[in-house]
Amino acid sequence: MFESAELGHTLSKEAYAEIEPQLRTDLLGAQFELLESKACAVVILINGIDGAGRGETVNLLNEWMDPRHIEVHAFDRPTDEERERPFLWRFWRALPAKGKIGVLFGNWYSDPIHDRSQGHIKKAHLDQRLSEFNRFEAMLAAEGVVLVKFWFHLSRQGQKKRLKALEANPDTRWRVREADWAFYEQYDDYRQVAEHVLRRTSTGVAPWVIVDGSDPQYRAVHVGRILLERLQRRLEHVRKGFRARQAAAPLLAAADERNLLNALVLNQPMDKKEYDRQLEKLQGRLALAVRSEAFAGRSLVLVFEGMDAAGKGGAIRRVTEALDTRQYHVVPIAAPSDEERAQPYLWRFWRRLPRRGKVAIFDRSWYGRVLVERVEGFCSEADWMRAYAEINDFEDQLVSAGAIVVKFWLSVSDAEQLRRFKARETEAFKRYKITSEDWRNRDKWPLYEPAVCDMIDRTSTENAGWTLVEADNKYYARVKILRALVDKLESALKL
Amino acid sequence: MFESAELGHTLSKEAYAEIEPQLRTDLLGAQFELLESKACAVVILINGIDGAGRGETVNLLNEWMDPRHIEVHAFDRPTDEERERPFLWRFWRALPAKGKIGVLFGNWYSDPIHDRSQGHIKKAHLDQRLSEFNRFEAMLAAEGVVLVKFWFHLSRQGQKKRLKALEANPDTRWRVREADWAFYEQYDDYRQVAEHVLRRTSTGVAPWVIVDGSDPQYRAVHVGRILLERLQRRLEHVRKGFRARQAAAPLLAAADERNLLNALVLNQPMDKKEYDRQLEKLQGRLALAVRSEAFAGRSLVLVFEGMDAAGKGGAIRRVTEALDTRQYHVVPIAAPSDEERAQPYLWRFWRRLPRRGKVAIFDRSWYGRVLVERVEGFCSEADWMRAYAEINDFEDQLVSAGAIVVKFWLSVSDAEQLRRFKARETEAFKRYKITSEDWRNRDKWPLYEPAVCDMIDRTSTENAGWTLVEADNKYYARVKILRALVDKLESALKL
Repeated sequence: MFESAELGHTLSKEAYAEIEPQLRTDLLGAQFELLESKACAVVILINGIDGAGRGETVNLLNEWMDPRHIEVHAFDRPTDEERERPFLWRFWRALPAKGKIGVLFGNWYSDPIHDRSQGHIKKAHLDQRLSEFNRFEAMLAAEGVVLVKFWFHLSRQGQKKRLKALEANPDTRWRVREADWAFYEQYDDYRQVAEHVLRRTSTGVAPWVIVDGSDPQYRAVHVGRILLERLQRRLEHVRKGFRARQAAAPLLAAADERNLLNALVLNQPMDKKEYDRQLEKLQGRLALAVRSEAFAGRSLVLVFEGMDAAGKGGAIRRVTEALDTRQYHVVPIAAPSDEERAQPYLWRFWRRLPRRGKVAIFDRSWYGRVLVERVEGFCSEADWMRAYAEINDFEDQLVSAGAIVVKFWLSVSDAEQLRRFKARETEAFKRYKITSEDWRNRDKWPLYEPAVCDMIDRTSTENAGWTLVEADNKYYARVKILRALVDKLESALKL
Repeated sequence: MFESAELGHTLSKEAYAEIEPQLRTDLLGAQFELLESKACAVVILINGIDGAGRGETVNLLNEWMDPRHIEVHAFDRPTDEERERPFLWRFWRALPAKGKIGVLFGNWYSDPIHDRSQGHIKKAHLDQRLSEFNRFEAMLAAEGVVLVKFWFHLSRQGQKKRLKALEANPDTRWRVREADWAFYEQYDDYRQVAEHVLRRTSTGVAPWVIVDGSDPQYRAVHVGRILLERLQRRLEHVRKGFRARQAAAPLLAAADERNLLNALVLNQPMDKKEYDRQLEKLQGRLALAVRSEAFAGRSLVLVFEGMDAAGKGGAIRRVTEALDTRQYHVVPIAAPSDEERAQPYLWRFWRRLPRRGKVAIFDRSWYGRVLVERVEGFCSEADWMRAYAEINDFEDQLVSAGAIVVKFWLSVSDAEQLRRFKARETEAFKRYKITSEDWRNRDKWPLYEPAVCDMIDRTSTENAGWTLVEADNKYYARVKILRALVDKLESALKL
């Protein structure tokens, strides 16, 4: 993997002086075309061996292009707000919006490579992370992000030479710290781990570019050209109106009429008296669970999806009544803001993830991708087809970071929905709840039904299963929701 | 101040049962009218004595209204990201967008009252904070935020009674902690400080509402009614198209023609050789300063304002060349996003403030309020007139929190601007930099000139003065900027 980069590529100062002016002009031009077209976001990963010129190269990119539209992020130790979310949260936070270039200096690769070469994590753990990264990057690429991954390399010999040279010069001697020599001693381990990581994560959509870091002129030109090529190619695609070709295997409905939804008996019995009794008991258990010591180290993510007028709002209120009001946020999901539209579709959910000890309740959620966006054609078939796996990954990350994820689908019969719509139109303070949009969606239910069935089939994971709620009777529905939630919580918290 | 609240107001359960249904219906209705009209944001502050029913009341508000559009924020100890910014940063973060209700449970008043009653801060320090709060709240009110401040009160006797009652019941005994009795002992000190704070910060635009917390029915109805009244009054104003009446004293130009800008000699001599020599020296000093240990505990906020084509971009690049690329962010200010438009105008700058050891470079800034917004009439005269004081407050808070604030105005002569505009139209890679908008702005310069002079006069504070830069000669301008910056930094860091 590093063979070519250890050859010792060089470029004379004269050759550099000849190449550089045109290269920087072209890069600046590409940057501004990117900015104006807002065609995509560009994410540049900077990794590699100490002393191979990473910092210098990033400085150069800032010099060549307009630094006002380049966002450089360096990741030191995570802040406490970052530590309390999934590993990738801090990188989601740093993603550039469309039209911008983000340089991630230190990124999702840094810690795993370091930790593995120090022996802090096992190979299996590393490999698990790498698969996670591959899926994450595939998602970014499919969302239109241009991902350029640079590995700055230096041979063992090259590194030694560099440290010696720095030490020999009184002006630069301070730059060599003890840690640098210690790192040099571990060079072979580090190289081996890095090689494994790069091989595993060099994918078709996001290959690694290995840069021989020994000669400043050579590496600058190499990086500049690669970046320019990637930018220009994408810009040309945009100019020509190309869309990335994505394959999607069609989903076929079952051969009979039976499905997850029509198998439900929507009108389940429960009277007010029984409801009040159950509600009090379940809310009490919920209140205890979220106030328990065990919960302080976890978080809770609730997802409510369902047909219009199925009673999501009412169910959410029965949940929040049992919570400490300082502990939860309800996140109503409507059309994205323009900042959200300039990011991959999952971004707006990542930004609302709860810290430890907190609860986030999503009233509609990321499942919009495979429901309304699928049905209304807001995204392509390939887009929503890949969303199932992306969403499973997202929820897996939540769970790995200690979140408890509970998801509800509320179903209501055609007749009951009609009754509720009409009631809303007449009740003064429910009128805000009914719009022509709702009536239109009601007509589209035949299109939603298979989408919901696919969603439940494909995203009911061990970590985060769906609870289907028969909701013609609100009392029954609310009690079922609370019971499922409390059971899941108590078992997760071992109460 | 607390006399009426210590009378022991009560409301029977029967009376409550009669009042409650209509009150909650009205509140819900008002909430949805707010949500649909996006007329304003509502900020509810919840403060008071322990046990006076703050938490219960917030829970009740969530029950009465739709919790999906209420954001409750509780503020415990600041996170490390919060600690590294000005005191008010965490509250800016939590401001609700227009149409939403934010409940701040624990807020800017909590720590100062606590710290003063414990004797941790002096009275003068407290009073300084209180004036800060008054100005902050006046700004919020002027920006259209409805601010409702509740103080939940309980007499010393009332508190004792409550603690005893809790202890007597085996089911609630656990709720009484030692700290509660300790607090009870300090009741008089706390009450005295609170009274002082409330008196000082009960302003016309944001008066305190004192709530007798001893009776649950009474306090619930009282709070509900106050909130409803405030909401309905604002909604009615919006329906009627009222605008808040704001007084603005007109600014008069000087009686002669002489002003800050035309007194500048814009074409200052400096040749390339001298420039290169100075640049290298100054960039070296800048590099050392921002890498110094002293800077690790501070931050740097740079503001670049100036005429179109005055060379802001070029100057910013000469600054960033000396910085570690991981250390700074350039923040180009263009039209606000829709999330930003739903907030007070300073919000989008607060969200970009740097952490310790970091540099934020604003390419255009909050001064847009008194420049383009004034000239183009995007805000009223009263709005930009109050902005001078608001901006001074903002920068004072930055400086108090350890930031070093340096501001540049770049001026270029009419002839030189024309020359640069024309050059931009012909140079291939500068074409993106010139639009019809720029030509239009150029014609408006006579309107901008007095706005710039007023801005410099009114916002050149001791903490954050303006440096006027004669920019016809780019070499001279860049060197002047770097020198001013380096001098300011070295003196602030005592290097």
